[in-house]
Order: sequence, then structure tokens, then C-alpha cells
Amino acid sequence: MNRADAETLDATDPLARFRDAFALPPGVIYLDGNSLGPLPRAAVERVALTVGQEWGQGLITSWNAAGWIEAPQRLGGKIARLIGAKANEVVVADSTSVNLFKLAAGALSLRPERRTLIIESGNFPTDVYVLEGVCALSGAMLKVLPPDEVLGAVDADTAAVVLTQVNYKTARRWDMAATTAAVQAKGALMLWDLCHSAGAVACDLNAANADLAVGCSYKYLNGGPGAPAFLFVAERHQAQIRSPLSGWMGHAAPFAFEDRYRPAADIGAMLCGTPPILGLAALEAGLDLQLEADPKAVEAKGLSLCRLFIDLVESRCAGHGLVLTGPRDMAQRGLHVSFAHPEGYGLVQAMIARGVIGDFREPDIARFGFSPLYLSHADVWDAVEILRDVLETKAFEAPEFRTRAAVT
Amino acid sequence: MNRADAETLDATDPLARFRDAFALPPGVIYLDGNSLGPLPRAAVERVALTVGQEWGQGLITSWNAAGWIEAPQRLGGKIARLIGAKANEVVVADSTSVNLFKLAAGALSLRPERRTLIIESGNFPTDVYVLEGVCALSGAMLKVLPPDEVLGAVDADTAAVVLTQVNYKTARRWDMAATTAAVQAKGALMLWDLCHSAGAVACDLNAANADLAVGCSYKYLNGGPGAPAFLFVAERHQAQIRSPLSGWMGHAAPFAFEDRYRPAADIGAMLCGTPPILGLAALEAGLDLQLEADPKAVEAKGLSLCRLFIDLVESRCAGHGLVLTGPRDMAQRGLHVSFAHPEGYGLVQAMIARGVIGDFREPDIARFGFSPLYLSHADVWDAVEILRDVLETKAFEAPEFRTRAAVT
Repeated sequence: MNRADAETLDATDPLARFRDAFALPPGVIYLDGNSLGPLPRAAVERVALTVGQEWGQGLITSWNAAGWIEAPQRLGGKIARLIGAKANEVVVADSTSVNLFKLAAGALSLRPERRTLIIESGNFPTDVYVLEGVCALSGAMLKVLPPDEVLGAVDADTAAVVLTQVNYKTARRWDMAATTAAVQAKGALMLWDLCHSAGAVACDLNAANADLAVGCSYKYLNGGPGAPAFLFVAERHQAQIRSPLSGWMGHAAPFAFEDRYRPAADIGAMLCGTPPILGLAALEAGLDLQLEADPKAVEAKGLSLCRLFIDLVESRCAGHGLVLTGPRDMAQRGLHVSFAHPEGYGLVQAMIARGVIGDFREPDIARFGFSPLYLSHADVWDAVEILRDVLETKAFEAPEFRTRAAVT
Repeated sequence: MNRADAETLDATDPLARFRDAFALPPGVIYLDGNSLGPLPRAAVERVALTVGQEWGQGLITSWNAAGWIEAPQRLGGKIARLIGAKANEVVVADSTSVNLFKLAAGALSLRPERRTLIIESGNFPTDVYVLEGVCALSGAMLKVLPPDEVLGAVDADTAAVVLTQVNYKTARRWDMAATTAAVQAKGALMLWDLCHSAGAVACDLNAANADLAVGCSYKYLNGGPGAPAFLFVAERHQAQIRSPLSGWMGHAAPFAFEDRYRPAADIGAMLCGTPPILGLAALEAGLDLQLEADPKAVEAKGLSLCRLFIDLVESRCAGHGLVLTGPRDMAQRGLHVSFAHPEGYGLVQAMIARGVIGDFREPDIARFGFSPLYLSHADVWDAVEILRDVLETKAFEAPEFRTRAAVT
């Protein structure tokens, strides 16, 4: 295997044209789109239009005239196409954490006779933390269990199981259909976190008969830093589920200013406060771009990039102590690859200094994401060569890579 | 009184220079800054920099390098100066509704032996709706009482009283210090909603010994459509209060990825999900502008505009059925003025068609906001003359003003 072989793989890449749609800085190989996706060029103009024209000139009238008020549902409908949902099952709102709070508490409202929530240990921390908050306020019980004990623990008191389809650290992927069926067989609800799935791997919520889902839009959907998140409620649950975050935008008639809360009969009941229009504008540019790509091609290319990265690291960087974390089987993983290394933090910093941007996750994980819309197999080759050089020269030992930044 | 008299008042306006800092469309008299503040010119460049440079070029590294991760506290410190709080008592995050949920539930955590929340009827609907949600999930009791019955109802079971300093419809202003003292005398906590106060009227949380507060930033603070909101927790409560929205950004060490939630010991514990950076960028431009103005001059000018508007409407539009809603005493009001009129909706629409933008609130309220940074007394004169013409010509009866828009 050499660079020319990588270039050969790129020659037939059906997604190659998307690279030019992103404003990536020259000389950078960006392997952190699983943390913050890069800027779609179209977002620059979209945001400028929203600020200068819609806000500046349209002022308050833009809530109607520029379609601001429908944006949560309009963008939800676009995300629905990427996750196997119906347009009326998804809205964009708040953060993933806030949406998880709504749906975990909402699951308790759908299963009022059940008082336990189950989550896997090793899930992205906010998922566990948020369920702790739901349980502290509601008096429900939280069970945090190792992944392989989750399904066996579901019982008649279990209201919902919360799992992340693709683990943030290991990239291990749950079988969505089989897991959902196993949870539902015990009468519990299945709540999926799609933060590392949407825009990356195959995800068909309706085919899996999923009940509830949340996800973020600033990773593979390239919605921008802190972009609003999304949530999914299967149509069959929408009339019954109650969001505890019963803000005015979830009311059946927000501008009737009624005295008491009367939830919308549809997915709109999951909204809470005033929608964040600037964030939604940027996100819509990212979504419109994503919708031009065939999701099957996206997953296939992403896994091809991951496979190449794993193969090259294990062959060309052999003997340097890097240990693959997470599944080797492509069918069981998402689009980032993690290697444990005792000097993981310094390793990532030294690579960033040379233009290969990945990130670090405690305690020793160097993590690299392979977003299919703007990366090539040649990029993967080049990134591994830089990693090899960092390892061989022990560049990670430099003093400037010793101090932890606030965000790692 | 004639237009020249209004111009005389403007001649000594210490805030006149701020008008040019806003990108208001020509020919518009904008009396809806109490719903959505206009675009500060500086926000255009600020947002473009955040999108193009910080996101586009800095990518993930901007969380540290561009100060994104500290933005909630940095902007909170700026808002603190406008509401009489210490810099470490305020953060910017989420929406007003979500923040109210955090703090109302947080009040229950501070007064665990008390199980009742009290709110005034006629408060902005989301405040009541959100407390309904807190109570539904926690089992606490909600009392919704007429304003004049609130203080008498506070008893040994009352955890907190939630009041909006300036009412969204009538503009009636509570005496913050006296009300806070009366509530605290019964051992309850006082939670203020400052949506119609911040950037408008005098507001000194620390002088009033307030416990908790929330507020929005897209009205008088000109933060942009759906801009992130703020919340205040008095320093003395920060070690004990528990937010039910225990997301990772409120953790003592978010990037340690610890298994269980461990709240930050400071105001940071009130954060939940990833901060909305584009919204924060626009808001910071609005805040930096606001901080250049003397808050006393802001309130004084705003009340002068309101007084002029009331006087002119009642003299020049007499006999047309407009009835002032809310206090006539300037010491008891905020910076918007509401008149009831049987054709309130059409009236507002007909004025908008002639460039005077106000809004309508059910059932019959034409509402006009007098934001001091970009309005003049001459604007008030001109607006009233247009109102007079709309009334005299019955322009509000035109068929195009009969259909209610989604947002009124």
C-alpha cells in the first residue's frame, strides 16, 4: 500500500465533489468533524442574509415573512430524511442535553406505572448526567449498567432504555433494530442518542420501530458551533407524551397567550422557548448540503476511510504502542477511530501543530473522525505519515504539548 | 404641543448618538424593540468574524483560542453590570423558558421542606407554563394568583415566588426591593423574570437582595432573534442550588468525562449543553453597545418617550376608543405602552403598513415599545400622527388586515 493506492480509491469517490463545498483552511487535514464539523461555504451567505436582511431589514416581521417561526419543524423535516423518520416526527430545538431531558421525562409520562431508566456506563457523559437530573427531580430510579448487562436488566419497572447508537469514544455501534425490539419486548421504550450517527452512518428509526431519539447537529451535519440539536418522537407517541419543559413554543396556540399550558397535539409540543434563528440559519445550509449526498455512499466511504486508517496505523506505525479501541468489524462501528496511547494528549497536540486535527479523550485516547464529505483516502495516507513522524521523532514530548487546554 | 416641542426634547438627548449604531431600515419607526430589538451594526461584522474566521479557519481549536468556551460566563459578566449583579452571578445559556425551569426547580432544591411555587396570573404565559412543567415532574404544587393576592399567599410551604418585574402586556412594574423583602420575610425565595427590564429600566438585583432571576436578551439588549437568555443565582445560593438540567457543561470538569455528575461549585453549574456560539456572538455586540450607555439615562429617556406617547395618544387621538392599559404613573411602569381597542389587531397591521411597527397581544391590545437607544421624541410624534390617520380613515378595516399571522 502506498499513496498512489489511496489516490486510486479516491478516483472513483462519488462524494468527491463535496470537498469544495467546505471552507477548510489550506494545509489542514481535519479529522475532528465528529466533534465540530467544518464551515459549509453556503453557511456564510445564509447567515449573512439572516442577519443583514431578515433581522436588519425585516425586523419582527421576519417571524412570519422569513419563515423563522416554522424553522424548527422545517429543519426537523430535513433531518428526518437522514435518520429514517417522517417529517412530522422531528424538530430542531435546544441542545442535545435539554432534548434528552424532555424525552427521558417524556418516557416516564408514557409509562407512568414504570419508574426506572436504564443507561449504559461509558455513554457520553451528558447522557448519564441528564438522566441523573431527571431522576433527582421526578423520583424515578436510574440504573447505569455496562453495555452487555443493559438488555438483561430491562424489566417490568423499566420505562426507557437510553443508548447512543455510536459510542463517542470507541465508535462501537449498537444494532438499532435488534436492540429496540429486545427493549420493547419487555414493554419499555427505546430512546436513541444519534449524536455520532446523523449524517454519518445508516440510521433508520422507523425501520427499527424506535420510540424516541435525540441528536446533535454540529458534528457530521456541519451545523456550526453549538448549533441547535434535534429530537424525534414516533408519531404513535405524540398524542400522549408530555414534555416537562412546557414552554410557550410547545403550546397548541403560542400567540393566543392562554392562561394555562395546552400542549400542541403534534411534534411541536416538544419545543420550549423561542427558536435560535442564527444557529438555525447556519444549520440549514449544512443540512441542505448533506441532503445532496446519498446516505449509503456516505456510510460506505466513511467506513472505507476508517478501514484504511486502521490498516495504515497498525502497519506503518507498528511498535509505537498504539492500541485500537473499539470494534475492528466495520459493520459494528461508526466513523471515528480511537487509539489508546500513554502519551495520547501530547500525540494529538503534536499532530495538530502539523495540521492534522484530531482530539483527545480521557484517559489516553487519540480520536480521529472520518467525515466522508470532505476527506479523501489520500488525506488518510498523509495523516498517518504525519502520525508516524510524530511517533518516530517523539514530537509529543515537547513541553508546549504538556499543558491541558480547557477543551480537549 | 407640536413636533417642534418633541424636537426640543431630542436636542438635549444624551443617547442620541446611539441611533447610528443600529441598521434600521429607512422610513421605519420601530416600536417593537420590546419584542425583537433591531440589528446593531457591529453585530454584522461580529457574526461574520465568528463564522468565517473562528469557525471556518479556527475550527475546533476556537473553543479555546477564540474564547468560545468562556462565552457564557463572559457575556454573563456583561449582563451582570446591567442588572445590578456581580459578574460571577450571571451566565448566558439556553432560552428564558429553559432557564426558568432550572431555577424554579433549583428553588425547590434550596427549600426542600417547602413544596409550593407561586406565580401571578397574567404573567407572560411561558412563565406559568414552565412552572406547570416543574410541578408535574416534581410533584410540587403551583398556585397561580392575581397579582394583588400573591404576597398574602406566601406561607411556610412556599419555596419560591416568580414574578416578572415589568408585565409584558400592561408594563406594570413591581417594586423589586419591597416585594423581595416581603417574600423573604416568609422564608421563601424570590425569582424575578427580567425579560422586559434588562437594558430598559433600573434593575438592581443585589440591592434588592434578590435570590434568583432569568431574562431574555433579544428585546432591549438587541441580541438577535432567539438569542440565548441569561440567568442569575445570588452568590450565597450557588453552593447549594441544584439544576435539574444537569448537562455536561454544568459539570465541575466537563472534559474529564467523569462517569457521574458533579456540579461546578459556581454559576457554571447552571449551564447544560454546548453553548450556541453564533447566537452568543451577535448578542455580545448588542451588550457591548448597551454597556456604553448610562442605565439611568436609558430609563429616564424611555419613560420620557412613554409619557409623550400616552399624552399624545390621549390628546390627538381622543374619541377613537383607545383605552390605556397599565399604570399612568411613570414610577410604576416599564418602557412599552399598551392601548386596548376593539380593532387592536387591524390597527397594528395598518400602522405596520405605514412603517410604524408595533405588535398585538390578545385579546385587544395594541402594544408599542420605546427603546431609548434608537428612538427620538420626534419619532413618537410621527408615530402618533400615523395612528391618528389610521383611526380617522378607518384604515384598520381593510380586508388585508383581517387575517391573523402565525406570529402576532
